[in-house]
Amino acid sequence: MIKKYQYGKPFETDAVVEKIPVTSDAVPYGTVCTENGFSFTCSLEKNDAVYGLGENIRGINKRGYLYISQASDDGVHTEAKHSLYAAHNFIVVSGEEPFGLFVDYPGRLSFDIGYTEQNTIRISCDDANLYLYVINGDSPYDIVKQFRKIIGRSYIPPRFAFGFGQSRWGYASADDFKKVVKEHRDAHIPMDMLYMDIDYMQDYKDFTVNQQEFPDFKAFVEEMKAQNIHLVPIIDAGVKVEEGYSVYEEGKAKNYFCKRKDGTDFEAAVWPGWTHFPDVLNPEARAWFGSNYETLISQGIDGFWNDMNEPAIFYSREGFNEVKDYIKDFLADGARENLTFELQEKVNSLANNTKDYDRFYHNVNGEMIPHRMVHNLFGYNMTRAAGEAFEKICPDKRILLFSRSSYIGMHRYGGIWTGDNKSWWSHILLNLKMLPSLNMCGFLYVGADLGGFGDDTTRDLVLRWLALGVFTPLMRNHSAIDTRNQEFYQFENTEDFRHVIGVRYRLIPYLYSEYMKAALGNDMMFKPLAFEYPDDTFAPQVEDQLMLGNEIMIAPVYTQNANGRYVYLPEEMIFVKFLPDGTIAQETLSQGHHYVEIALNEVPLFIRKGKCIPVVDAAECVDQIDFNTMQYIGYESASYDLYDDDGVTPIAK
Amino acid sequence: MIKKYQYGKPFETDAVVEKIPVTSDAVPYGTVCTENGFSFTCSLEKNDAVYGLGENIRGINKRGYLYISQASDDGVHTEAKHSLYAAHNFIVVSGEEPFGLFVDYPGRLSFDIGYTEQNTIRISCDDANLYLYVINGDSPYDIVKQFRKIIGRSYIPPRFAFGFGQSRWGYASADDFKKVVKEHRDAHIPMDMLYMDIDYMQDYKDFTVNQQEFPDFKAFVEEMKAQNIHLVPIIDAGVKVEEGYSVYEEGKAKNYFCKRKDGTDFEAAVWPGWTHFPDVLNPEARAWFGSNYETLISQGIDGFWNDMNEPAIFYSREGFNEVKDYIKDFLADGARENLTFELQEKVNSLANNTKDYDRFYHNVNGEMIPHRMVHNLFGYNMTRAAGEAFEKICPDKRILLFSRSSYIGMHRYGGIWTGDNKSWWSHILLNLKMLPSLNMCGFLYVGADLGGFGDDTTRDLVLRWLALGVFTPLMRNHSAIDTRNQEFYQFENTEDFRHVIGVRYRLIPYLYSEYMKAALGNDMMFKPLAFEYPDDTFAPQVEDQLMLGNEIMIAPVYTQNANGRYVYLPEEMIFVKFLPDGTIAQETLSQGHHYVEIALNEVPLFIRKGKCIPVVDAAECVDQIDFNTMQYIGYESASYDLYDDDGVTPIAK
Repeated sequence: MIKKYQYGKPFETDAVVEKIPVTSDAVPYGTVCTENGFSFTCSLEKNDAVYGLGENIRGINKRGYLYISQASDDGVHTEAKHSLYAAHNFIVVSGEEPFGLFVDYPGRLSFDIGYTEQNTIRISCDDANLYLYVINGDSPYDIVKQFRKIIGRSYIPPRFAFGFGQSRWGYASADDFKKVVKEHRDAHIPMDMLYMDIDYMQDYKDFTVNQQEFPDFKAFVEEMKAQNIHLVPIIDAGVKVEEGYSVYEEGKAKNYFCKRKDGTDFEAAVWPGWTHFPDVLNPEARAWFGSNYETLISQGIDGFWNDMNEPAIFYSREGFNEVKDYIKDFLADGARENLTFELQEKVNSLANNTKDYDRFYHNVNGEMIPHRMVHNLFGYNMTRAAGEAFEKICPDKRILLFSRSSYIGMHRYGGIWTGDNKSWWSHILLNLKMLPSLNMCGFLYVGADLGGFGDDTTRDLVLRWLALGVFTPLMRNHSAIDTRNQEFYQFENTEDFRHVIGVRYRLIPYLYSEYMKAALGNDMMFKPLAFEYPDDTFAPQVEDQLMLGNEIMIAPVYTQNANGRYVYLPEEMIFVKFLPDGTIAQETLSQGHHYVEIALNEVPLFIRKGKCIPVVDAAECVDQIDFNTMQYIGYESASYDLYDDDGVTPIAK
Repeated sequence: MIKKYQYGKPFETDAVVEKIPVTSDAVPYGTVCTENGFSFTCSLEKNDAVYGLGENIRGINKRGYLYISQASDDGVHTEAKHSLYAAHNFIVVSGEEPFGLFVDYPGRLSFDIGYTEQNTIRISCDDANLYLYVINGDSPYDIVKQFRKIIGRSYIPPRFAFGFGQSRWGYASADDFKKVVKEHRDAHIPMDMLYMDIDYMQDYKDFTVNQQEFPDFKAFVEEMKAQNIHLVPIIDAGVKVEEGYSVYEEGKAKNYFCKRKDGTDFEAAVWPGWTHFPDVLNPEARAWFGSNYETLISQGIDGFWNDMNEPAIFYSREGFNEVKDYIKDFLADGARENLTFELQEKVNSLANNTKDYDRFYHNVNGEMIPHRMVHNLFGYNMTRAAGEAFEKICPDKRILLFSRSSYIGMHRYGGIWTGDNKSWWSHILLNLKMLPSLNMCGFLYVGADLGGFGDDTTRDLVLRWLALGVFTPLMRNHSAIDTRNQEFYQFENTEDFRHVIGVRYRLIPYLYSEYMKAALGNDMMFKPLAFEYPDDTFAPQVEDQLMLGNEIMIAPVYTQNANGRYVYLPEEMIFVKFLPDGTIAQETLSQGHHYVEIALNEVPLFIRKGKCIPVVDAAECVDQIDFNTMQYIGYESASYDLYDDDGVTPIAK
């Protein structure tokens, strides 16, 4: 049962697609709505768990912390942060009478989940214009499924997107990319995608390609395709200010960029230097921005990642001038000599300063809406621009698409990667914990930068992370420029990587099948154990294992120098290990707690009682998977219902 | 067997006190010594563990990462850092032929422990002047004990230092401190020490007290003592440049400050603004700096913590001028507009810039030694200054003393706290992992800021952390200004805190006894499981449990929203829980893996087979512990050899 409450004049985010009438009933919890804002309050029982919030830090159970929905370009994901790149305002509270809440509000919103008071949830924002959806149901899982239904079907990528993709910030020329492909193919490490980070562009201009480094881009795309490699270029939010650059000229002429209050185009410096932001909340501007993707699609490109769309701002014109004035005064005034902390703070505040959110506006149906009020919708609508355009540009073909920033609603247009993580062991677990939370909010095509984006990785970290990554729909190795080389062929004993990536390909028929079942059924692909075993009293505590689809449980190793890990089995299961010699070990384990040994080059999973899964032989790319090699592992008398399709044709909603 | 190798002309650090002749034998591993520096190389077998490195990040087993000995004032202890505040150059390699290495070298030194190549250790530095001690023995534990013997007996604090101490940056007046004491006493939360962070000083001048806030400091110290509270003031490394300030005037007149190459006193800005650093490597200057502690001791003070002694530098005169020139050019040159990242980097590089290490010198026996060459000795010698002075000022009394920065050798003069950690769950485990590593390097009186120094804490984090902290010799709740209030009485259900701190006091006779046995026997108080159970093949993997003394094993919960944890028992043990009603639950558990439930307000420990430990009734301060209430818990027929003394009188070496 879903009830929709309206407060003030909400901004229409299109997050929910099902038409639900606004109720005039009283909210069955404490809500307060004044000119100072909105707040929702309810109390928690000792053992209640709180799920949801999608892309966020901390646990599957979000209890005990303060989360703030404010899409932020911040690459240091410690447990003390309050916001990551997205705003996913959906929570589910377990307990006697479980309920879900979706706060459809695109500005800054805070979720105090037992942080200020251990047994109190308080959700609040400054502006009391929003829709509140309250969902009652039999269980948290039931509530999630109800919610997923009203927000519409999740994005369905092409099947090749279930292959492995290699990425690194710094690949700049056709030769760089060819080398990466050759190294993978020579080492027989399977691979389907090669990501193009910002350096492929001409001066970081969206929808351009550096002519010198890629003299015949179309031919290069073809050449890669012939080797079963899909090139996936990045598209950034900001459009470079440069006379003669057609995207800039057209956007400017048609007033498609975000504007200052005085009507001039807002200037934000990002990678290209000064840029303007396409006003993706304006349907006309959104259609126009989306139409530009055709430039690359017409050259054979069939996948994109949208970045910097919180939007990230290195500095605005106004912010830059303020800081210049500050440092002028600092230099002129000897008495400020001891204020170097303040100087540092000022200079550091140039980037991603929320003051800039008051400095630009969106034109929505002729009304000028301050960015601050709709901040969390930018990434969503940039990706929607692409998704809506693809339906026109290539209606018969699925295009790979994912984004950094997002809001619920965007899940219909693309996936997400979880942004600039680090080569930290703790980020393996963070990656795992986010998966079910993201699924609850509709995001199914998801993954983290395996091996870690920032900081220097180690071989063992990459291998352990991959043993989780082999299960995530988006499987990508990505790292930052100036960090340690992270391509698999850079490490000792490359055969271990070939084996682990090979396991991914052995599982693709199963993973694709489970993905599609989840997408078509508005279901989750990754679930907390408690969702599958609601009567198990231990399950709600398990924060380092997940149910995947209907057949398996995953439990990767995520600590350095460990030879295995503890695992909890809510029922008897078969413990499966993909061994480096290509064989598959199977051992039946009883319900309860176990310590299991898992070597660095082994991939573990657990098959639920009475179930089995299909496994094929490894292949070097998705198209070469030979379904004739399919065998089933797991319980002997079990059967599995395999979903399959051509992997290309869009599926009617 | 210990061999001492000499390379070039080592700086005499006095880390090792035992006279060991330099050998002319060849090193039984790969060492290379050229004008480009020194390197030591050896290979590792698959299952070899590497212990040591004292205060550092990552595991008890240091394998798989790059560690750099370079004392650093950096409060963000992520797993990607390479240095913390200390330099503890001792490692032990397990395996067929275990060996230990101590590199007595006070400059920057790197330990590549299977980071570049998974099975290779490489230790290197730029300057080939050092002593290398190679220790062979029966086991890693045996090697540690040999090493501990040659570096001399560890510091012994007064017994009151085993009580609980409250601290927070921001307590500024006598009234602030009185309030904290009253709140603890009113809530019956035991407490022995109250730490005074920088705000008690007059303008951050060492050895001064703010006259306005503490009009009669001596009387205030007395008043606190009457309530069984020891005030423990902080002393910073930098001496404020201020005419008329006697410490400054005297240090300047006697040339006791670190100097530039041109002979002028080096200027570094720290909390007081411009300061000079006392040249604690110069024996005369060290004696002079130490003598200043008498100013506070004569007012009744009997404990100190030495801070900012890496030394931390907010900016040097030279660095400040460089940055000023840079930003002048930045403002003047419009073309630099897009270099804001560089501007940020420049401005941020003001603080703790290692270029400053070339800008000042120490006077050692008349020779001017660049700071860079001896950087890691500053905190050691500042604390040695205090420790040596105390022997003269109050030869009949132990003084509480610990430091932020340290080098092996300092363990004879004081303890350490592990610096500015954060209110992160991961820092509970980091705290635990450092304990045995610190013990290996001689540091016994150790502890972390419980609840976390930086970032906002939560009630559950504090309680879980305390369940480790009740076992650490230094038990202190400390937090940074502008973070969430962290005194126990600020949280809901204060009785839980009263209970947990009470457990500490119930254990003090045991903890003091085990501490003293470790100190007097050159032994470890906290050991990795593998040290006690060398034949157990699983023990070397255990990174979240420790052996404490000879009787118990500890295994705190360190994850949010968990109701318990997994634990490995190398032998049968009694699982003890101190329950909030004051009773003690005891349950015998068999050898092997277990999941144990531990509530937020319970303190767990495990008693080894055939052992018992003494427990007394809780008291509100150490002096009120009633030894007549002593009972023994654990195995029935067991006996325990309790060490005790007056807790005050220094013990002859």
